Amino acid sequence: MTTFELSIDALRARRNSKWNRYGSDVIPAWVAEMDFSVAAPIQAAVQQTVDQMDYGYPLRNGNRADIAVNNAFAARMKERFDWEVDPDNVLALADLVQGTFAPIRVFSEPGDGVVLQVPAYPPFREAIIDNGRRLIEFPMVDDGTRYQLDIAALERLIDPTTRILVLCNPQNPTGRVFERDELLEFGRVAIERDLIIISDEIHSDLVFDGRKHIPIASLSPEIAARTVTITSPTKSFNIPGLRCAVVYFGTAALRDRFFKSFPRRMVGAPNIIGIDATVAAWTQGQPWLDEVLAHLGKVRDRVASRLRKELPEINFHIPEATYMAWLDCSKLGFNVTAADFFLQNAKLAFSPGETFDPASRQFIRFNFATSTAIADEILDRMVEAVKRARS
Amino acid sequence: MTTFELSIDALRARRNSKWNRYGSDVIPAWVAEMDFSVAAPIQAAVQQTVDQMDYGYPLRNGNRADIAVNNAFAARMKERFDWEVDPDNVLALADLVQGTFAPIRVFSEPGDGVVLQVPAYPPFREAIIDNGRRLIEFPMVDDGTRYQLDIAALERLIDPTTRILVLCNPQNPTGRVFERDELLEFGRVAIERDLIIISDEIHSDLVFDGRKHIPIASLSPEIAARTVTITSPTKSFNIPGLRCAVVYFGTAALRDRFFKSFPRRMVGAPNIIGIDATVAAWTQGQPWLDEVLAHLGKVRDRVASRLRKELPEINFHIPEATYMAWLDCSKLGFNVTAADFFLQNAKLAFSPGETFDPASRQFIRFNFATSTAIADEILDRMVEAVKRARS
Repeated sequence: MTTFELSIDALRARRNSKWNRYGSDVIPAWVAEMDFSVAAPIQAAVQQTVDQMDYGYPLRNGNRADIAVNNAFAARMKERFDWEVDPDNVLALADLVQGTFAPIRVFSEPGDGVVLQVPAYPPFREAIIDNGRRLIEFPMVDDGTRYQLDIAALERLIDPTTRILVLCNPQNPTGRVFERDELLEFGRVAIERDLIIISDEIHSDLVFDGRKHIPIASLSPEIAARTVTITSPTKSFNIPGLRCAVVYFGTAALRDRFFKSFPRRMVGAPNIIGIDATVAAWTQGQPWLDEVLAHLGKVRDRVASRLRKELPEINFHIPEATYMAWLDCSKLGFNVTAADFFLQNAKLAFSPGETFDPASRQFIRFNFATSTAIADEILDRMVEAVKRARS
Repeated sequence: MTTFELSIDALRARRNSKWNRYGSDVIPAWVAEMDFSVAAPIQAAVQQTVDQMDYGYPLRNGNRADIAVNNAFAARMKERFDWEVDPDNVLALADLVQGTFAPIRVFSEPGDGVVLQVPAYPPFREAIIDNGRRLIEFPMVDDGTRYQLDIAALERLIDPTTRILVLCNPQNPTGRVFERDELLEFGRVAIERDLIIISDEIHSDLVFDGRKHIPIASLSPEIAARTVTITSPTKSFNIPGLRCAVVYFGTAALRDRFFKSFPRRMVGAPNIIGIDATVAAWTQGQPWLDEVLAHLGKVRDRVASRLRKELPEINFHIPEATYMAWLDCSKLGFNVTAADFFLQNAKLAFSPGETFDPASRQFIRFNFATSTAIADEILDRMVEAVKRARS
């Protein structure tokens, strides 16, 4: 067992959503958080502030505390992706979802079209619809080996009122890590059609098999000038409840255009625990993350090999990134949604496919960021439930 | 010494803005936080979440965690002010400033007039100006005994493009607690001229001498229907860095009007540490607050009596609420601003009057939420500096 895996008892003692939304006989494998303890430097940073009850208006290194986040983001982008970013163009806020709503609001008008890859993280659909924009679905295409961006289809979807392309890279829930050529093509379309790109790169730390994440804004100044990159340590360092995320404007001009219509203080100030945790994660968390990633890779492979062998009717591609497997259960012939089948018959809570794409009722998203023991129990229950349903 | 007062060494060890913006020879008495440890139930609630590293998507009592804030707010308003509020009409967010920006955005259009009492908390000026609204200054009138609302003047200030009245009650920085008749008159104007009231009531817990805070929205259904009340435990329970505040819409119709143009997720989700601290403060923090308030009352009286005796040229009214004294130093004849005089000559950092009102360059706001020992040192330094300047 690794140092970060937790027992089911420790997990059930938590008061989080993952382990408490369903009954105590259900094993949760839904919402995107990991069943792990956090990196020691994060815990130490949080504990220091708590020990001092240092809950006043925060300063770090002589500056407003959120500037420490901006600087940590810039240093990390340089180190991990050789991407030079200007800390002055970062906006730290509470969460990535907020970081989607606000740019959609600023860079489009009511009724304008916003393109979203589907399947998609559900709040991105809301960010478009709740803001009164027109959702243009851009389906990922399964070519039999993996999900692809169909650039020709994208070009056909864009009309004169389209303003924004939402990109999710690595893609949640399909686990794709887009390659340079795909991203360049995507960027070319944005340039040719004069569109803003909102690029969710929150899974960029969770990439397997030696693949490389490429921030789309790092590809060229022309792409950067129209790209809003959003990311956060919350997924890869397992701290979503602490609420800290960043919005990065590819140029000062883009940033200024944003702030001209959306004052900075409208988004609220990030809290000091989230700030301290974020800075610790980004500056000292990598050794922990390397270990976690090695573990996640092993669990991913274990899930893949058992499913291929014991439930070969489930169609899926091994995720290139993220701790999510996007499983097509259509061939199992359930007469309820796939998520409902496993909840009712296996006491397993997966994320329902239809929340990512209304057409994907026979899909589930399986969050495998857990201990090997719990992953095995989940797989046992899946296999048993399908077997029982057939007999 | 009380259980919550802290030594100057413990305070200087903190990394907050208050104790670190100026040199280590300066005693800070500016930004609105207290030099105290927090209530034990707050610390226990924070520590529980930290011990469990329960940083995932949070749930409390089987619901989204921010609903626990809404319920704690409703219970507290009933208990403290006999005010019935509907938890469904509460929006929990990061901070009060954000809670000002967003309603100004929703309930007025660019160029519309927004009335603000002056002197005023500086971010309220920004909330009006940064949103492209027209700032209409509504001066508090010093009648020789205290600062008053001049309702006749208010009525003259309102024009056909005025949409919003910002009320701060208890008022920061003058320390006034408005009485029922004053609030009813203010509300009458809002009704007659069809205006929205944004009522900052963050200091409502910090009221002295047996006075009673009255939430303006509690006065009548007609006032409630046009009132957005904003508050937070951050001032009275000393947790501004943890970031949690509430916006309360007086009716479901007002709430729906807000959310129709400003989706809930645009404001971001509050963080779990701030939520746990807020719920602990509002449900278990009152015994601590009662002790703190008794201490603050004593320090206030000590400040007032020494200033009256030793610096009688300083004009001020004893604050009815808040831990701020609004001191008019005009008669001392400084040839720099009053804040600069004390910073340069007494190594004291007060909030500069001109940030609350450009005309108040000879005012300072003195934050006296500190130990008796530190308050005495501040008073000694003030008296000495004035004496030296005269000799």
